[in-house]
Amino acid sequence: MSSSEKNITQIRTEEQFSGIDRLQALMAPAMTRVNTLIRNRMHSDIVLIPTLADYLLSAGGKRLRPLLTLTTSALNGYNPSHGNDDAVLAASIEFMHAATLLHDDVVDDSDMRRGRQAARMVWGNAASVLVGDFLLGQAFSLMVQTNSLPALKALSHAAMVIAEGEVHQLEMRRNIDVSHSTYLTIITAKTASLFAVACQLGPLLTQKPEEVCQAYYTYGLNLGIAFQLVDDVLDYGGKLQTLGKKVGDDFREGKITLPVIIAMGSAKTHTEREFWYRTLALVDQTPEDLDTALELLKHYDALEKTIEYAQEYGGKAIGALASIPDAPLKHHLINVVHGCIHRAV
Amino acid sequence: MSSSEKNITQIRTEEQFSGIDRLQALMAPAMTRVNTLIRNRMHSDIVLIPTLADYLLSAGGKRLRPLLTLTTSALNGYNPSHGNDDAVLAASIEFMHAATLLHDDVVDDSDMRRGRQAARMVWGNAASVLVGDFLLGQAFSLMVQTNSLPALKALSHAAMVIAEGEVHQLEMRRNIDVSHSTYLTIITAKTASLFAVACQLGPLLTQKPEEVCQAYYTYGLNLGIAFQLVDDVLDYGGKLQTLGKKVGDDFREGKITLPVIIAMGSAKTHTEREFWYRTLALVDQTPEDLDTALELLKHYDALEKTIEYAQEYGGKAIGALASIPDAPLKHHLINVVHGCIHRAV
Repeated sequence: MSSSEKNITQIRTEEQFSGIDRLQALMAPAMTRVNTLIRNRMHSDIVLIPTLADYLLSAGGKRLRPLLTLTTSALNGYNPSHGNDDAVLAASIEFMHAATLLHDDVVDDSDMRRGRQAARMVWGNAASVLVGDFLLGQAFSLMVQTNSLPALKALSHAAMVIAEGEVHQLEMRRNIDVSHSTYLTIITAKTASLFAVACQLGPLLTQKPEEVCQAYYTYGLNLGIAFQLVDDVLDYGGKLQTLGKKVGDDFREGKITLPVIIAMGSAKTHTEREFWYRTLALVDQTPEDLDTALELLKHYDALEKTIEYAQEYGGKAIGALASIPDAPLKHHLINVVHGCIHRAV
Repeated sequence: MSSSEKNITQIRTEEQFSGIDRLQALMAPAMTRVNTLIRNRMHSDIVLIPTLADYLLSAGGKRLRPLLTLTTSALNGYNPSHGNDDAVLAASIEFMHAATLLHDDVVDDSDMRRGRQAARMVWGNAASVLVGDFLLGQAFSLMVQTNSLPALKALSHAAMVIAEGEVHQLEMRRNIDVSHSTYLTIITAKTASLFAVACQLGPLLTQKPEEVCQAYYTYGLNLGIAFQLVDDVLDYGGKLQTLGKKVGDDFREGKITLPVIIAMGSAKTHTEREFWYRTLALVDQTPEDLDTALELLKHYDALEKTIEYAQEYGGKAIGALASIPDAPLKHHLINVVHGCIHRAV
């Protein structure tokens, strides 16, 4: 049994199978306030806006980021009977996330999103770009509504860092020499920084000291990295490669993620290197190539190793909460990390 | 001599030929502070960001919107020796404007911008979308830096309204039945609202009463409408149809602007209506169609009438300043309106 398998077993025996689900159930009343705001704020007389926004936002999605804002607000003593700012900031986070999804799909020429056709396939790229801009504008209007300058600073900075990460990823597209550390820099910016600010909004809203805000930020940042790495693994079917699940979207789009970087770094033959170059740099693929890619990933334990990295970042996320006083919601945040990683194993 | 020609003559005899140029010269020291901020804030280690942003932002452009912010700040007593917030807000306005230009060119499939290839023709649509997002993020980060909540409210609301106007325009694309009033609603949202907020930032920054802020907002809004109508006229070569100037970009892209709406509304024959339908709804054009369009515009005085509307909105802009105490900078703002309209005549 490898050390990573031991870790996984350990997580399982602690019955932390559904940390996200259980937190969702607990925070359901607060999330209702967020959902009301989302519904109201996607409204516009320009019917294409609510139509397209609703198509994306009602397509499911775990609303994990707003859930983290609600949770860290409650954990830091925010009292919803005195206001709705926790929900306003949570809705703002979800709008920012939705805007990046719309723009991402345009940038990546993606056909599918959340199990159905991407919005751009239904209404076109132009609509996705502009409705994304509208949602970003709404995100900013919402956060300004709270009058919390520290929250505004954190969120506007995140908006910039996310876009910077997206451009970095674009620059590295089709480049199979992208390093492990460059990849981590990219996902830290484009994915983890929104998790980080989502978690930091609670202590910022309740005016907690700098070191408390920093602890939540570090928790969110590392959770976000772990989350993205698990997503990368899931795109190749997860460690168990669950039957029937659609796999290989990233591969088909020529996306270079950590599992592939690990497999490419371990490549022993010229044939392997040529395979990755053809399929990911040139994106010149046959239908059989995905099977070859999966075999190579398996041969080099690339999915297991990616999960190990996810666990390492998950550990850092949990470690960041060490200085936070014990409380039931704190345990929920810890279980979110386990639940997030558990998706892949 | 028509009444519009009389107005034009009147403007000329008052020697208000270059209201924008003269204000630019006057505000040059302040604009230097803005340009420094723009240069610093477009920096990123991700080289594609400063490369693309610099390509757009150094391609000229009058920087009229930040100029308005600097002017209304100075006119309302903002003292730059106590801070740089006027320049910070002005840079924020220019970044918001630049972001919309990048996204607009993607949405409209435009080839050219500011006399050279559009950024998307050099670096692709994906880069233009994402660098636009970065500039929008920087715009928000900059405005938050001023700690002025009223300015933040105004700017974030404008970001939303602009995007809403862009989506509205997209919805109306290829629709030759778009009415005069719908067209005004669209340009008010997508163009004039940024002018309005640019002008309102001065009194907001200096904490002037609501009615003063509103006066500047109304000035900017009407100036913005006039500005867009003049742009529409210029795209058909202006009233004088200056020789050698490239005309007809809007026509070739099938953009339905006020001159065309006026000509279509006046169309007397089935042939004319079919012409507009084929060239603007179907965008099925021959090289000779632009000449036909120009003849029809001339036949119905559509450019003159559009200039008359621009003058009407220009008059409203000037009227909005009636309650503002007399001062040299106020006269400059009035001359900006004349200068703006003068571009077309």
